[in-house]
Amino acid sequence: MKKIVFVKLGGNLITDKSVPFKIRENVIKDLASQIKKIVNKHQDLDFIFGNGAGSFGHYYASKYKNINEKELKKFAFIQIHQSVVDLNKIIVDALLKEKVNVFSLSPASIITVKNNKVKFFLESLLTALNLGIYPVVYGDVILDDKNIYQIFSTEKIFFELIKLLLKLNFQIEKIIYLTNVPGVLDDKNSLIPLINKDNFNKIKKYFFKKNKIDTSGEMYHKVFESLKLAKFGIKTLIIDGFKKDNLEKAIVEDNFVGTVVE
Amino acid sequence: MKKIVFVKLGGNLITDKSVPFKIRENVIKDLASQIKKIVNKHQDLDFIFGNGAGSFGHYYASKYKNINEKELKKFAFIQIHQSVVDLNKIIVDALLKEKVNVFSLSPASIITVKNNKVKFFLESLLTALNLGIYPVVYGDVILDDKNIYQIFSTEKIFFELIKLLLKLNFQIEKIIYLTNVPGVLDDKNSLIPLINKDNFNKIKKYFFKKNKIDTSGEMYHKVFESLKLAKFGIKTLIIDGFKKDNLEKAIVEDNFVGTVVE
Repeated sequence: MKKIVFVKLGGNLITDKSVPFKIRENVIKDLASQIKKIVNKHQDLDFIFGNGAGSFGHYYASKYKNINEKELKKFAFIQIHQSVVDLNKIIVDALLKEKVNVFSLSPASIITVKNNKVKFFLESLLTALNLGIYPVVYGDVILDDKNIYQIFSTEKIFFELIKLLLKLNFQIEKIIYLTNVPGVLDDKNSLIPLINKDNFNKIKKYFFKKNKIDTSGEMYHKVFESLKLAKFGIKTLIIDGFKKDNLEKAIVEDNFVGTVVE
Repeated sequence: MKKIVFVKLGGNLITDKSVPFKIRENVIKDLASQIKKIVNKHQDLDFIFGNGAGSFGHYYASKYKNINEKELKKFAFIQIHQSVVDLNKIIVDALLKEKVNVFSLSPASIITVKNNKVKFFLESLLTALNLGIYPVVYGDVILDDKNIYQIFSTEKIFFELIKLLLKLNFQIEKIIYLTNVPGVLDDKNSLIPLINKDNFNKIKKYFFKKNKIDTSGEMYHKVFESLKLAKFGIKTLIIDGFKKDNLEKAIVEDNFVGTVVE
């Protein structure tokens, strides 16, 4: 069984977060061409891809953030979901253009919450991996019988997936987050090369600098989830998605720009 | 528990089969507005919608029909899948515009075949119904570990779904197929109002008239599957999708244009 690499294309990397529904076409094209080379070169590895919701899903998610009225909340679910389907389609089409065998797996279709318990259908993803087709998930909203919907980020999907795959004795090679920043930065905007449970408490303060709550909140979430994975011996790389060939460098762990969480 | 009506918007109704990727925009708009009225009026009923692949999926499906080479077949799967996702998105967006609470459920995500056995994830669909959100499925390709993929028509999805829902004691009110013809026609192009196990053998010959193999093949498939459902006491209506208000008339079974299979 091949070891699996999880790769997330960050929402703020593939879209311009300052403009709703604006994609970064050249970045997407470049990432698709990098991925093409990588899957061809590393045939000893399996890949599961994911893409963030970026300025597509987040536009509606923040528009409907404080909605509690039931009918409106259902409508919010549908609008957010359709918008993230749109963005994922752009990503999958770009990969398809490079003839990478990818398959868009709809999180809202395979994940649902019933009585506060996550139900996750793994079978279609397993068939895809088995056939050598790489699944692509995405940050989505999923149905929840108590709260109508929940936001389910790519990070959260990866985390749930990894738990299930480990139970089935799959081996996880690493997680790579391609982002729109060089990695995790300190208060002087210097890159922190390594985060682990020993230095996390010292670093934590950088995530909540004044006026940087949003971006840092996302990064905190990423690092926090990654430290949980580190307990299972799984390494996470949070890397610069704009940097030429940085994904390939991160896969072979040679001279990449980014932060390792382990 | 509400009784469920299954409604399929036929592929050749919502698209023009003579031109690849050409939708019938006005038909889709009209159907969405009919559906809006119907779900509001019949709140005692639940609905599961589906749409055919039409000239989207069938274009690639016939292009790759005789492909057996493994890598090419994987690529065929992805291309067919992406094209039916496209068409389904157009349908769901039209329903969303009318503010119908619909949720696109990806068949390739929730259905897969392993060792010739169909595995079907029902949970996300059940949560949707439970919340009053109507699932929309579509004719799709699904992954199959032995044959890479299988074509899974909306009819087939409905049939698998119904089997599962009956086991869970759901009640099925009826199935309505909206098509681009008045219903099942005989050799003089007259509408056959009723088909059942008693007259099926007599009618069968009309399905295989010379030069009409394709269309008739589809209709035969529909009637054949419907007769199987008739054994469970479930009625199918194959109706004219172009006719004004025909869907509403079929729901109340008053003066609609179409064929009943029971």
